[in-house]
Amino acid sequence: MNHLQKNPARPIWEDPDTGKIYIIDQRQLPHQMVVSELADVDDVIFAICEMMVRGAPLIGVTGAYGVYLAFAANTSDPDEAAQQARRIRRARPTAVNLAWAVDQTLEKALAADKQDRAKAARQHAAAIAGLEAENSRLIGEHGLPLIAEIAEKKPGQPVNILTHCNAGWLACIAHGTATAPIYQAHRQGINVHVWVDETRPLNQGARLTAWELGAAGVAHTVITDNAGGHLMQKGLVDLVIVGTDRTTYTGDVANKIGTYLKALAARDNGIAFYVALPSSTFDWQIRDGVGQIPIETRDSDEVRYMPGVEKNKTHLLLPEDSQAANYAFDVTPARLVTGFITEKGVCPAEETAIKTLFQKHSR
Amino acid sequence: MNHLQKNPARPIWEDPDTGKIYIIDQRQLPHQMVVSELADVDDVIFAICEMMVRGAPLIGVTGAYGVYLAFAANTSDPDEAAQQARRIRRARPTAVNLAWAVDQTLEKALAADKQDRAKAARQHAAAIAGLEAENSRLIGEHGLPLIAEIAEKKPGQPVNILTHCNAGWLACIAHGTATAPIYQAHRQGINVHVWVDETRPLNQGARLTAWELGAAGVAHTVITDNAGGHLMQKGLVDLVIVGTDRTTYTGDVANKIGTYLKALAARDNGIAFYVALPSSTFDWQIRDGVGQIPIETRDSDEVRYMPGVEKNKTHLLLPEDSQAANYAFDVTPARLVTGFITEKGVCPAEETAIKTLFQKHSR
Repeated sequence: MNHLQKNPARPIWEDPDTGKIYIIDQRQLPHQMVVSELADVDDVIFAICEMMVRGAPLIGVTGAYGVYLAFAANTSDPDEAAQQARRIRRARPTAVNLAWAVDQTLEKALAADKQDRAKAARQHAAAIAGLEAENSRLIGEHGLPLIAEIAEKKPGQPVNILTHCNAGWLACIAHGTATAPIYQAHRQGINVHVWVDETRPLNQGARLTAWELGAAGVAHTVITDNAGGHLMQKGLVDLVIVGTDRTTYTGDVANKIGTYLKALAARDNGIAFYVALPSSTFDWQIRDGVGQIPIETRDSDEVRYMPGVEKNKTHLLLPEDSQAANYAFDVTPARLVTGFITEKGVCPAEETAIKTLFQKHSR
Repeated sequence: MNHLQKNPARPIWEDPDTGKIYIIDQRQLPHQMVVSELADVDDVIFAICEMMVRGAPLIGVTGAYGVYLAFAANTSDPDEAAQQARRIRRARPTAVNLAWAVDQTLEKALAADKQDRAKAARQHAAAIAGLEAENSRLIGEHGLPLIAEIAEKKPGQPVNILTHCNAGWLACIAHGTATAPIYQAHRQGINVHVWVDETRPLNQGARLTAWELGAAGVAHTVITDNAGGHLMQKGLVDLVIVGTDRTTYTGDVANKIGTYLKALAARDNGIAFYVALPSSTFDWQIRDGVGQIPIETRDSDEVRYMPGVEKNKTHLLLPEDSQAANYAFDVTPARLVTGFITEKGVCPAEETAIKTLFQKHSR
């Protein structure tokens, strides 16, 4: 059941009285704040597939709560619950956090006594949410010096940061990933201005990042996805920070389609290109991002139609008979990435540095 | 006065009976074919500024007809007519064809006897239209071998060509520039498939190029402006061809915002990036495209609102309070351009080659 609510502090939460799970329906922002209950596994899969919730860390947390709902509905049938968990795991292919969070939560549930499985899953989902919020806070701390350094070099002028899609608190649990250092800088009184890529086809930049930044009082300007290269040529971008849906241990970065083009432009203009991510977004199995990360192809109607402000109203952009294609992500090769901003600190986009920071053994 | 018409063969024409000047109102495509009369200079400036007509060669021809209308309304006051012509010249800043065509037509008019000035301007406008149509035909001939060569290397498979914005017959007079080789290849039975960049904010790709290609029976798929880099990484683009609004004699290419990002991606993936242009689009005065070509900034409402299919209906994309910026063009440095397809043949994006082909003296 949908209802309007004033100002949720997180994009997903448990009601402290009823224990029910609620999300912000992000499809309706910025024009309406609609809150929806996730009552069962089908609700969870629908919310993830239809992008009521999106963003790698949030998809992970939502998936973990989905495992809880699977066990709550199948207290005496753990096999059925596990099978439903695997359905959730497949809801979207690109973000690795979903599989990571579902697998972990399923394991915790199955390790518990029969009557405690749902509770164990729920506690673990809440733990992942807490971990991601803390990771984002730390990403903000580690990223802040990158912005402060630029601010020192141009006193009285804003630090211009370009971002693509939404890697804000709506995509995570709190603070965001790409936005975490920006919010920190803003709170410290640094003069920041954000170029917000519109991010077609679903306009997460224009709808969500602009909404978040506006609510926090951060100066920002929405641009078409086409504009970033020109702004860089003209010296109007100091720094690029984006999020990621899956990053290989070799440093290749899958993120919202179009990220790669901005990385190329940043490299061509000598501008730092940072990716902010919690360690849950690293894929420790895949070496070649461009070749191996599965890129989701979504319904072409997302390209053909532009959603309007009136609910459920869409507006055709193309001729009726023209085909459209809708690739949801692309991969930015490690060579174009200046560095990763993680909860453990900043590191170059390079296998040894990544493994050292996260104490993973070489394969 | 607007009226619907079935199938105009050109985007601007003189009515053979009445001598009136008509255009296709391209803002209404693909959902409606609306024809408008250009009755006076204000109509001409409005049509150019509001992009009822757009595309460098067409803007030039429209400007030339504007000079005719200026003299027709001021038969006894050539100074007033010349002043009105200069207003037309300033209607949009980036495409060099407008100044080129207005200056030429003004000169022809002023060189004629007083009673013949309007007629001389009109004849010259028609001559420019004829010249541009012939230039486009020749661009098609010279570009065809580039496509045929790829087709030979992958028998049974389509040649995948990516284009940005609309450089079709709607932007020119006939055939188009970037599309001219594509139409030629299609007519010769070569299996071509075109990736059509949507081209935000005004969607000339989704609305106009898709409409043109569909009408001609050319296979095509509309993609967001974000998608091209990913397609190139995956080997799904064989060739990029775009048009241009102004190209320096040193080879730097101003074209619709976002072109530069596609040139970077083409270079990064070893894909040929061609620019198709008639010689009227060369700027023989400017050496440094990135530094010197004026880039138009248009109304930010074009980014904030998406036009819908219902006439005059727009749909807000951003939060009410978020700013938006709307840069209309960007510059692709010569180093990223494989070559130019012109009416005189194909040449590298390099000063000596360009000047040799067009027999311009070194400065």
